[in-house]
Amino acid sequence: MSVAFVGEPGSFSELAAKQYFGNRKKYIPRREFKDVYDAVHSGDAEFCVLPIENSLAGSVHENYDLLIKGDLLIVGEIYLKVSHFLLANKGISKKDVEKIYSHPQPLAQCRNYLSKFKDIEQISVSTTSAAVKLIKEEKMKNAAAIASLQAAIDYKMEILDKKIEDNHNNQTRFLILTKKAAKISSRSKKRIKTSVVFTLKNIPGALFKALSVFALRDIDLFKIESRPVTGKHFEYMFYLDFAGNAEDEAQKNAINHLREITSFERVLGSYYCGEVVEPDLKKRK
Amino acid sequence: MSVAFVGEPGSFSELAAKQYFGNRKKYIPRREFKDVYDAVHSGDAEFCVLPIENSLAGSVHENYDLLIKGDLLIVGEIYLKVSHFLLANKGISKKDVEKIYSHPQPLAQCRNYLSKFKDIEQISVSTTSAAVKLIKEEKMKNAAAIASLQAAIDYKMEILDKKIEDNHNNQTRFLILTKKAAKISSRSKKRIKTSVVFTLKNIPGALFKALSVFALRDIDLFKIESRPVTGKHFEYMFYLDFAGNAEDEAQKNAINHLREITSFERVLGSYYCGEVVEPDLKKRK
Repeated sequence: MSVAFVGEPGSFSELAAKQYFGNRKKYIPRREFKDVYDAVHSGDAEFCVLPIENSLAGSVHENYDLLIKGDLLIVGEIYLKVSHFLLANKGISKKDVEKIYSHPQPLAQCRNYLSKFKDIEQISVSTTSAAVKLIKEEKMKNAAAIASLQAAIDYKMEILDKKIEDNHNNQTRFLILTKKAAKISSRSKKRIKTSVVFTLKNIPGALFKALSVFALRDIDLFKIESRPVTGKHFEYMFYLDFAGNAEDEAQKNAINHLREITSFERVLGSYYCGEVVEPDLKKRK
Repeated sequence: MSVAFVGEPGSFSELAAKQYFGNRKKYIPRREFKDVYDAVHSGDAEFCVLPIENSLAGSVHENYDLLIKGDLLIVGEIYLKVSHFLLANKGISKKDVEKIYSHPQPLAQCRNYLSKFKDIEQISVSTTSAAVKLIKEEKMKNAAAIASLQAAIDYKMEILDKKIEDNHNNQTRFLILTKKAAKISSRSKKRIKTSVVFTLKNIPGALFKALSVFALRDIDLFKIESRPVTGKHFEYMFYLDFAGNAEDEAQKNAINHLREITSFERVLGSYYCGEVVEPDLKKRK
């Protein structure tokens, strides 16, 4: 029972995976999003966890493309609050720091914070965990790393500064994917959502009709986003999340009705609506 | 007559600005998006250019937030193809390169390409131009920079590799903002679009009604995107681009009709639909 994620142990994807599955599973790191997806496809992992949208940076179209091209299904989601910490070796203080190591993304997300340091060298490495590992193993006395609190605990680092990200409303939505549809209990009180992707030609009437299949059946929408189809002028792809299970009567009718209007359509899965969580601070086993 | 943009000369924002306005204007670099916006607000610049969405990374919510909070209007747009180049000092070849300097974003966008180098050190600096300037001024013989072709020409660098971005369908949409609404000629044959932002409560019926105000008047939609309002559960903000001028009869009626349904609504401007352009290769004056 294993779960693939992108990055190294201590990455936000791993944190999201562990928040969702707990410590019982085996976690398999992969370098690229497509490797994470392929790990499940090839049978190396049972599940995978992929970031799909961030509250500041928007939807990760690259991962929507993986969802459309492959045949994995969404079986769950989790919203992880993103928080960055400045870490150094024990006994080092902020005035000693001349170099800061991290992944390019956290460096960009802490731009205001970093601008307060004078003459600091920013060095990009492959992951935030790699940054912490490097300054720890090389026993650096003039360096710090931007990483998660989990990495601080894992590598027993000094925390020089907490929550240094420029915007504190920074959260990432992760999807849980596998080969089989989620088991949804009709007795559960949890809210259920279904994700679909579709393309329409001739936008004005068509989009209105597409949304009417949900409105006419009183089905709530949680997300709608259009994206131009590359290379095809005035053709759009739509991402839509709506309330309910695709197997329920009204939802099933809505999807059949939708198929009459769309030029392409794919149900990505039905699953329980996810919670917003802070990364867990417990030491990993 | 001046135009504010983010980054240094040679940045993609400057390229977008120059593609839009040509060489007649004065260009003013600013460090952060909000500084770019404020430059126009305070009267330091007449126009500004801000990236609003990328074909891979999605909408820049941060800049939508600036648009909502301030009172500048959109008066134009341009889609710029994003291409990265590996640059070094004259006479340097790829096998000499031990360090690669760039902004975190291009480093991330060239991840596959960079993974082919063994033991290379990636160093983040504030902008791609700063990276080129640094290796040029320090006469580095073991370093390269990832930057635009424009930077290669400006700084007379050796081009070690072209178009090294992982995904070639990478383009960014920039908005042109100023204090006064765009002058739109009723005789122009160019397509016109209008951008609005609004919030709705009670999504199902409300979004359907909101879109019906356009569908019932045969007004095309170019973009629709929902975004959860931070801290308010089940309240959503919508970004919508539709065909036509907000001053035209049908569009004016549609906007009035929209106001009956929304809890907040703002027309961000009417402007000519933009073209997709490759960065201009001509030497800057």
